[in-house]
Amino acid sequence: MKTINLFEANDFAEKAFKRLLLHDSPYFKILNFNFKAGQELPLHSHEIEGEVSIAVIEGSGQFLGKDGATIPAKAGDVLVCEIREPHGIKAASDMRVLVTIAPPI
Amino acid sequence: MKTINLFEANDFAEKAFKRLLLHDSPYFKILNFNFKAGQELPLHSHEIEGEVSIAVIEGSGQFLGKDGATIPAKAGDVLVCEIREPHGIKAASDMRVLVTIAPPI
Repeated sequence: MKTINLFEANDFAEKAFKRLLLHDSPYFKILNFNFKAGQELPLHSHEIEGEVSIAVIEGSGQFLGKDGATIPAKAGDVLVCEIREPHGIKAASDMRVLVTIAPPI
Repeated sequence: MKTINLFEANDFAEKAFKRLLLHDSPYFKILNFNFKAGQELPLHSHEIEGEVSIAVIEGSGQFLGKDGATIPAKAGDVLVCEIREPHGIKAASDMRVLVTIAPPI
């Protein structure tokens, strides 16, 4: 049993989003990404089995999808998609998200 | 690709915590539990392989562990433990948590 606090363990950077690995096991990988307003995790995908969830902890922006699709993203939103499905994030304000990947990449 | 907003999709109840199933797949199960101040998810465990993460979205309280252990829980805290390890939550204020179980129970 271990705990980590997202707000204390990770901060923001001017150059690009900050990534923090919270947990990695045979079951899932848990990451925190912090974005300054305007920063993004570009649209990407991996040709493997599995799913990813992205929970918005703070701030707002957009989830990015295939063919230029955008879905508004705000605190409390949880996105779930297959890892093979293109996904990304663009922050409108400073934004913290929690990402869970199962099985881990 | 689907999204759901925790704040809009689930509320609180006087009688006991409110449980919302966000997602269930072969890879993971994602749930949201909302607790009114004083409500709890009692200490429990399951004799199966896997891990559970509990992210505090809002509010504060305690994570419960074996032998009466308590760990302070506040917004931004993420707890990870094996599913076979006793775990629980007790809310001090109204509290929203996001629970991910992999592989799904």
